[in-house]
Amino acid sequence: MRALQYRTIGAAPELVDIPTPTPGPGQVLVKVTAAGVCHSDEFLMSLPEDQYTYGLPLTLGHEGAGTIEAVGPGVTGLTIGESVLVYGPWGCGRCYPCSKGEENYCEKAAALGIRPPGLGAPGAMADYLLVDDARHLVPLGDLDPVASVSLTDAGLTPYHAIKKSLPKLVPGSVAVVIGAGGLGHVAIQILRAMAPCTVIAVDTSEEKLELARAVGAHHAVTSDQRAEEQILGLTGGRKVDVVFDFVGIDPTTELASRLVGVGGDIVIVGVGPGTVEVGFFSTPWEASARAPYWGSRSELMEVVELARAGRISVEVETFSLDEGPEAYERLKAGTVRGRAVIVP
Amino acid sequence: MRALQYRTIGAAPELVDIPTPTPGPGQVLVKVTAAGVCHSDEFLMSLPEDQYTYGLPLTLGHEGAGTIEAVGPGVTGLTIGESVLVYGPWGCGRCYPCSKGEENYCEKAAALGIRPPGLGAPGAMADYLLVDDARHLVPLGDLDPVASVSLTDAGLTPYHAIKKSLPKLVPGSVAVVIGAGGLGHVAIQILRAMAPCTVIAVDTSEEKLELARAVGAHHAVTSDQRAEEQILGLTGGRKVDVVFDFVGIDPTTELASRLVGVGGDIVIVGVGPGTVEVGFFSTPWEASARAPYWGSRSELMEVVELARAGRISVEVETFSLDEGPEAYERLKAGTVRGRAVIVP
Amino acid sequence: MRALQYRTIGAAPELVDIPTPTPGPGQVLVKVTAAGVCHSDEFLMSLPEDQYTYGLPLTLGHEGAGTIEAVGPGVTGLTIGESVLVYGPWGCGRCYPCSKGEENYCEKAAALGIRPPGLGAPGAMADYLLVDDARHLVPLGDLDPVASVSLTDAGLTPYHAIKKSLPKLVPGSVAVVIGAGGLGHVAIQILRAMAPCTVIAVDTSEEKLELARAVGAHHAVTSDQRAEEQILGLTGGRKVDVVFDFVGIDPTTELASRLVGVGGDIVIVGVGPGTVEVGFFSTPWEASARAPYWGSRSELMEVVELARAGRISVEVETFSLDEGPEAYERLKAGTVRGRAVIVP
Amino acid sequence: MRALQYRTIGAAPELVDIPTPTPGPGQVLVKVTAAGVCHSDEFLMSLPEDQYTYGLPLTLGHEGAGTIEAVGPGVTGLTIGESVLVYGPWGCGRCYPCSKGEENYCEKAAALGIRPPGLGAPGAMADYLLVDDARHLVPLGDLDPVASVSLTDAGLTPYHAIKKSLPKLVPGSVAVVIGAGGLGHVAIQILRAMAPCTVIAVDTSEEKLELARAVGAHHAVTSDQRAEEQILGLTGGRKVDVVFDFVGIDPTTELASRLVGVGGDIVIVGVGPGTVEVGFFSTPWEASARAPYWGSRSELMEVVELARAGRISVEVETFSLDEGPEAYERLKAGTVRGRAVIVP
Repeated sequence: MRALQYRTIGAAPELVDIPTPTPGPGQVLVKVTAAGVCHSDEFLMSLPEDQYTYGLPLTLGHEGAGTIEAVGPGVTGLTIGESVLVYGPWGCGRCYPCSKGEENYCEKAAALGIRPPGLGAPGAMADYLLVDDARHLVPLGDLDPVASVSLTDAGLTPYHAIKKSLPKLVPGSVAVVIGAGGLGHVAIQILRAMAPCTVIAVDTSEEKLELARAVGAHHAVTSDQRAEEQILGLTGGRKVDVVFDFVGIDPTTELASRLVGVGGDIVIVGVGPGTVEVGFFSTPWEASARAPYWGSRSELMEVVELARAGRISVEVETFSLDEGPEAYERLKAGTVRGRAVIVP
Repeated sequence: MRALQYRTIGAAPELVDIPTPTPGPGQVLVKVTAAGVCHSDEFLMSLPEDQYTYGLPLTLGHEGAGTIEAVGPGVTGLTIGESVLVYGPWGCGRCYPCSKGEENYCEKAAALGIRPPGLGAPGAMADYLLVDDARHLVPLGDLDPVASVSLTDAGLTPYHAIKKSLPKLVPGSVAVVIGAGGLGHVAIQILRAMAPCTVIAVDTSEEKLELARAVGAHHAVTSDQRAEEQILGLTGGRKVDVVFDFVGIDPTTELASRLVGVGGDIVIVGVGPGTVEVGFFSTPWEASARAPYWGSRSELMEVVELARAGRISVEVETFSLDEGPEAYERLKAGTVRGRAVIVP
Repeated sequence: MRALQYRTIGAAPELVDIPTPTPGPGQVLVKVTAAGVCHSDEFLMSLPEDQYTYGLPLTLGHEGAGTIEAVGPGVTGLTIGESVLVYGPWGCGRCYPCSKGEENYCEKAAALGIRPPGLGAPGAMADYLLVDDARHLVPLGDLDPVASVSLTDAGLTPYHAIKKSLPKLVPGSVAVVIGAGGLGHVAIQILRAMAPCTVIAVDTSEEKLELARAVGAHHAVTSDQRAEEQILGLTGGRKVDVVFDFVGIDPTTELASRLVGVGGDIVIVGVGPGTVEVGFFSTPWEASARAPYWGSRSELMEVVELARAGRISVEVETFSLDEGPEAYERLKAGTVRGRAVIVP
Repeated sequence: MRALQYRTIGAAPELVDIPTPTPGPGQVLVKVTAAGVCHSDEFLMSLPEDQYTYGLPLTLGHEGAGTIEAVGPGVTGLTIGESVLVYGPWGCGRCYPCSKGEENYCEKAAALGIRPPGLGAPGAMADYLLVDDARHLVPLGDLDPVASVSLTDAGLTPYHAIKKSLPKLVPGSVAVVIGAGGLGHVAIQILRAMAPCTVIAVDTSEEKLELARAVGAHHAVTSDQRAEEQILGLTGGRKVDVVFDFVGIDPTTELASRLVGVGGDIVIVGVGPGTVEVGFFSTPWEASARAPYWGSRSELMEVVELARAGRISVEVETFSLDEGPEAYERLKAGTVRGRAVIVP
């Protein structure tokens, strides 16, 4: 089968032919219908050799959708041809966080060598994907796989980030979303579906601000020196309840620190080096900061239900497997509207 | 191997010889070190033929502990000889509640014919127990299996019931535990370990009231016509915040209804016909009633941690497999102190 | 000043002239701009003498809006002429529930003789209303008092009922609202603003079902023998997560009991004699039932914010003080669309 | 009456004679039975003139207990001679946080010039204390005022800090308390009363470690270079669930940062310059940091209930009003065991 692989440190990914895998006990072979392209792929391909820990060659793609092609011994309850999403943050399935479906925080994955597809295990940018356990499949029903595949990360990651802050997003509250790209433009929709807060989007790109408005942001503010002032103008001078930072670099975490109010939350989702300094004299009373990672199995099911109800949709641009390298170039250049998706 | 089976409607269980099972893909064979005896076994053996739905013959025992004897294809991460508890409420592992480890509320178990061991599937009262999936095993470490086996139900069921009511058990609050038997005497300990409330136990048996005091109840009240008056005497006339009813018959649910105050909880855990009538003119404002069932995977792990920390212990009387029928007779007569456990 | 008073058991309320009160220390005199007409007024006027405990004569009106006319000694922070809503469930302000603003559950109100305006204390159906403490006033800003006055009960009561069940209203969940009248039609809007669930309204009146659809119900079902079947048809056979019963009579609580699923909530808000029987064999596992009452101070502020954001609006029909008796007749006949409001 | 006042920047406080105040409308005059001495008094007296904002002269004492001496017009429900604690973080009583009793986070206090007693308003280190509103009094009953006065800050502050982290303190979890002084030694007791976690205390002073053990810490570790290693030795290498830092300087916030695990909490309570850097590459996934301040009215009531149940007690050393300056010197020298209390 064909697979888009990262094979040489620093080089672009290549399309190669590799043997189609066979599912062992408990495993499931999925025929890929769509695979999402993500900034974190780009991040890992930017790492120097001494920091790169994902193995080579690496079939890319941690966002995957497909149809059941074959099941290994002991797998029951699945129908050949059924359309599914693949939950990506694979864990051991038995430790304490895994027992709650929070496999993103598995305590044993590192020690056991368990890695997500596309981030260590072979990923979804191929004709077929081998899924390690049937529990990692979520039924998609008649939702379009191409439009839905990015729910597994670009949907799930902001959903998890938002869900933990929901109790603070009461009527009258304000949420700021920094970065209206692949994850941010879904975050805006999730906020509108789940909470009665006012949503203010911030981005450097006018095109992304337009997207932010189109998907439901009440306000969209250009990310520059005047951003803080403009936002506080919109809130009547009141500080903000929750800031979601989908960029995570110094200028954005600093903006977040200046915006958050007493008892608020700063949620750093972007995979960047930015930090927030928390202390008695550094942050408003009881303002908290955290940097979560991906989401749980039940949360992915909830995200799929949001999509099924028409409450969220991911803007996608599609590429063929051959066009995979180009998709990453476009992503790097910041010219993808919404999310890039590869359709084998 | 030997197995204690319920074979004839209305008859006592019998010890028989049956083939030792072999684990298939994903399955695990456990050598039983202990199996708990429960009122719900007695309940199912009391059912007339037209209401009995558990299949015959039925190897009893939904509380099980053992050591790993053999694993089926595809099972990794277990060590032969490792000591484990068996999580009993088996579910499909993939539906929404199962994705959070709440297999006790699996949405598909009934349709798929999935039954807990001892309640449909072959149970733990045998030399060996076949466990359907490695995720149903919780490491026991060096805890004594005989003392620990009942954590899987007599520990887990009250733990789950209590955990959902914890936010109401603030300092100054009062919890009443009706029935200080197998589950109730563990409930008292869990309450003492988890919440700063005052704990009042109620039972008809003076021996059980003594046990209640011994395991930490602040007060123990005889269950008779004067119980309500006595309890309100202890609280200074204030109604109660949470009532846990481990009996579940009319006199106990009625007592619970009279005791609960504004915003309180009535939690019916006992498998009985008693009910609570909730309505605007029937219950104090916002008092709620519910009848939960068993508990989740992560909750069983938490229960094991409570035991490991020495915060709870189950009083047990041990019986051999041969003495199994006698254990059920003693249970029925109400003469078991704490929990009866069968040690093969 | 003029006041609409209930003066004779069983008779209609009368418009009379009484002295305008003067605010004492801590008190505030409000010039009434609007007063809401509620089923519970009708309920208390239907009580026989031996059950009537609200005092005579009683100036009606527990939903009040007005402008600050005068403040008593020690009151600071208010501006004469400021537009406010009156929080109705007055409590002592110092007991445990009151310390959290849950004055609706004040532990001492009964003993201290503290009563809500219109339900013991003189109410808002008059030219002026004496408010016992400045903390019971919520700033209305430039919201229309006539359109907003019913937020204090018809808004607050469903808001409180819904807020406690929000954790169960995840994506994919279903909420049923029985009764689409004064409170129910606001409940539908609150649900749409606060949660991503599907909302199904049930009523006997086709006109109210139309209102339900107009304010956002996804589905509206006639309350008859086929209601259960129709609702389960809409959910694909899946039981319901939360049922809000704004009627509270036997047929509606019975419908609620048949609809609720495992782990769901039945919330009885309607002031009626209907009850739900909760028990191990009577309700699905962990389904809970409760009958809350009104709401807290902070919740009223949240409700006002929902209105300010345009997320909820109360349908109102206005009446003058002279037309007060007629408003109650129309309410009794069930011909008011939304909420009746008296404008002095 | 006598009052211990801070009168000159940089000088020690002085005992002076000032007029006894008279309660106005809504106010209450309390005859002081005890007043607590706190590090934050010392902190404000260390500020240079340009940073000092509390006014001069300032009667010290934000922890106060007393008996009702006189009430102003409009105050009802209090009995002359009744023993009370004074809730210190006075707010406006009407804004959103105040409506929930979270006056510590009042949105309007600064603008309205409302200050806590001893931190702007005249404090409790005097014969009499004027309390601005009856809602700020919590009945003490027959608890000893001297032993109880520090519940208002040294009890309430850690209680509030702990309560928000309780959901993470499940069985098997570990809490670390850095600093076993006035607040820390109460924190240890609150943790033991409220949660089943393991409690590890850290301090530089062997005497305080001994106190920590005496009040219930499972382990006590000297705060030096080896502290991290020792703590991870106690947990079997597992990172910590919640770290409470009652010191708040760089070495302690750094230790907290190194100790916290995935999904854990760092709670900075100490009034110091230390900070925690939160970011995707700086902290474990979803570990959060916050710096809360004091607590709410309902939480103070809960703290009093803990004391009433004998679950917490504050170690106190008593001083007369004359010995006030000495008490502050002893505090500064770190030689007070537990909390210093002034008894007029």
